Amino acid sequence: MPIPDTALSQLRDLLGERLSITAADREAHAGSETFHRAPPPDAVAWPLSTEDVSSILAICNAHGVPVVGWGAGTSLEGHALAVRGGLTLDMTRMNRVLDVRAGDMIAVVQPGVTREDLNTELRATGLMFPIDPGANATLGGMAATRASGTTAVRYGTMRPNILALEVVLADGRVIRTGSRAAKASNGYDLTGLIVGSEGTLGIITELTLRLHGQPEDVAAGVCAFPTLEDAVNCVAMTMQAGIAMGRIEFMDPMAMRAVNLHLGSDYPLQPHLMVEFAGSPEAVRANAAAFGELAAECEGQGFDWATSLEERNRLWAARHASYWAALKLRPGATGVVTDACVPMTELPGQVAAAAADMEAAGIMGDIVGHVGDGNFHTLLLVDPDSPEEIAAAKTLARRMAERALAVGGTISGEHGIGLGKRDLMAAEHGEAWAVMAAIKRALDPNGILNPGKIVPDQDAG
Amino acid sequence: MPIPDTALSQLRDLLGERLSITAADREAHAGSETFHRAPPPDAVAWPLSTEDVSSILAICNAHGVPVVGWGAGTSLEGHALAVRGGLTLDMTRMNRVLDVRAGDMIAVVQPGVTREDLNTELRATGLMFPIDPGANATLGGMAATRASGTTAVRYGTMRPNILALEVVLADGRVIRTGSRAAKASNGYDLTGLIVGSEGTLGIITELTLRLHGQPEDVAAGVCAFPTLEDAVNCVAMTMQAGIAMGRIEFMDPMAMRAVNLHLGSDYPLQPHLMVEFAGSPEAVRANAAAFGELAAECEGQGFDWATSLEERNRLWAARHASYWAALKLRPGATGVVTDACVPMTELPGQVAAAAADMEAAGIMGDIVGHVGDGNFHTLLLVDPDSPEEIAAAKTLARRMAERALAVGGTISGEHGIGLGKRDLMAAEHGEAWAVMAAIKRALDPNGILNPGKIVPDQDAG
Repeated sequence: MPIPDTALSQLRDLLGERLSITAADREAHAGSETFHRAPPPDAVAWPLSTEDVSSILAICNAHGVPVVGWGAGTSLEGHALAVRGGLTLDMTRMNRVLDVRAGDMIAVVQPGVTREDLNTELRATGLMFPIDPGANATLGGMAATRASGTTAVRYGTMRPNILALEVVLADGRVIRTGSRAAKASNGYDLTGLIVGSEGTLGIITELTLRLHGQPEDVAAGVCAFPTLEDAVNCVAMTMQAGIAMGRIEFMDPMAMRAVNLHLGSDYPLQPHLMVEFAGSPEAVRANAAAFGELAAECEGQGFDWATSLEERNRLWAARHASYWAALKLRPGATGVVTDACVPMTELPGQVAAAAADMEAAGIMGDIVGHVGDGNFHTLLLVDPDSPEEIAAAKTLARRMAERALAVGGTISGEHGIGLGKRDLMAAEHGEAWAVMAAIKRALDPNGILNPGKIVPDQDAG
Repeated sequence: MPIPDTALSQLRDLLGERLSITAADREAHAGSETFHRAPPPDAVAWPLSTEDVSSILAICNAHGVPVVGWGAGTSLEGHALAVRGGLTLDMTRMNRVLDVRAGDMIAVVQPGVTREDLNTELRATGLMFPIDPGANATLGGMAATRASGTTAVRYGTMRPNILALEVVLADGRVIRTGSRAAKASNGYDLTGLIVGSEGTLGIITELTLRLHGQPEDVAAGVCAFPTLEDAVNCVAMTMQAGIAMGRIEFMDPMAMRAVNLHLGSDYPLQPHLMVEFAGSPEAVRANAAAFGELAAECEGQGFDWATSLEERNRLWAARHASYWAALKLRPGATGVVTDACVPMTELPGQVAAAAADMEAAGIMGDIVGHVGDGNFHTLLLVDPDSPEEIAAAKTLARRMAERALAVGGTISGEHGIGLGKRDLMAAEHGEAWAVMAAIKRALDPNGILNPGKIVPDQDAG
């Protein structure tokens, strides 16, 4: 819906030049890293403070104007697309690190701070914020989507690394959830409810984050396997043995080919595991040796590990470049990315079935995965201008999601629901989806916060 | 309110002898480990299945009958007391371990299984469920109160160790939250919302738990410090250094005196830290050595560590006996237990202030703590028949809770709200308490689930 003139003029009075209805600004908030597309929002606002956000929401709530939060724009499921129009709330100017309490291992940040900016600021403290979804996302966006990534096997997702939030509710009320304490049993876990709610229950205006010590020593290694099953079995054995992994990532032969093209490297075109160990030098050595033994049992070839920063960066460049490298396999293509997460024993079968699906459908793409968590991604390369290709890829993606559900897994390990997976919510959650809708109605009765996401449409509720 | 005859007869038709209104059965569900007291419930039911629970709730919801879940009865804040009468749902006969998937490191259990029973059943698998609140509580109760305890510093609280729940809602609908996947970004975190909701949002009928490998090696140690500040500073330094601790527990001189009386041991009457390290033998050795160096820097005396099971059990017997030992300091006394949890740098000041408070008020008791999380407990020994003593202890407890809030901590690290801390909820949560009430109304509009707990009374909402 277009924004009513009264609301627009109230917003303009509040924000001045920090409200825009120019085509350029609106278009800049209509894009997505992947194939998802939607018309631009009707207006864009750049709040500078919690008070700004509160006033904006009060105005929009009174006039029924949709409000969609925006961070770095790096989400993969179209979360921040204003599918019902309205106002996009660009949080990137709320980008201050408000407080670093090294002794408490806590940082308090505004939502527009990116994870790389925070870690740059933390460097001298010996601490870090470890969650790494790949993109240099904003911390507010990472909280809203419950992001994780390569380090989740060690540090968990965003959820356990957020101690407290300041949140503006749909009607402009400001609440604080959580505390600076490391744990609590003090009522409903509202922090956990907001994390992963994708902007549908409130707008995050401040985050209190749990920091971790920069490890004394880090080692990285890479290992090729004859078959996908060998590689994935090695992961399962590693996790069951309780070896403390810093990261453990799977890349299929096509992903290695993409990396070779991108970096000029010459990795063999076989399934690989890329691993990292972190801690004291003794612990790193012990864990790397234990992993090496298991890898050899699983026919892993040439496992070696390096502790020099340069060598580690060289090894991890391959994994980090993977997404962009894979897009180069088919110039001009865009990606349909899947995100199944399954119990460990199901991982070999699920990855093999996904590979077979891609082969059978003749869709080019690769498979990578945060396999220590049972989470893997296929990147399906499609022509963004071909509705047929996109439809075929979505059919494949749906099959992979349903296959994950059939073994007790989930449709989304870390990318979230956004536009891409809402039609799978009933299949995953059954009656619990109605409970989500009831919570949404309780917190946002007018349905202004990121409408069209997560929950069923309110008129259906 | 008494249970209407129609409801009672429907319940009797459903449950037969598994419904009781005898004084003995009702009285058996009116007690508490601590000073909290309430009249007994009007009836007690023993469901055997999810279907039983669903039918019971549908009946009670239709007649507005309060329903209060009951596990082992070991909670410390009177959570399971039926303060508004109604029906107590004793879950202890739903005590089957339904499935152990060792390869996925998952166990599926009914809520009445106790943590010790589960670990007995797991012994041969090489896996364990590590959360240890002290008492041999039921896993359903531990989930409902978001329990943690001595191992939380390593494994976290119940929250991250629960992958999925089956929950019966107030109206009898059955939902499943979560999945068997290790992580997810798949909509609102309903698992997290139910965990810690103390039976006010739904009745847990099944839990899918995350298991952990039994560590290859374990070492325990104990160390005396000249002052409380030295001991607590050692904890802060240990956590900031990122030394992987299995447990790190504080006990004050009075707690050591109680233990000596109880066990016939001769620990010096000084502040102590009791620690545990777990993992590979190399990691255990490295971590114990690193801790030993820090303890020495903090004037710790006589730190030594032992890996034999017998010696470890001897060391931990002291900590495990602490609660019951302390009650013996004053025969006939009952406990008012505090549960503040604060940021690490605030811990020395908060513990010292608590000790000074107890001294000034002339209330006998001790201080122990899961100090790696910033969580400490004072046990205030009071005459259960003296309203004056109980009132004085509650005043002290309130002061400690408010002092924790003043430094960004929480009123409850792990014991929950129950009856004891509801009057502090507004102080801790402000406007967020109203959000909890809105969620409660959305999920339990008739307010039948454990009324009088967690949220403000519905007529006030």
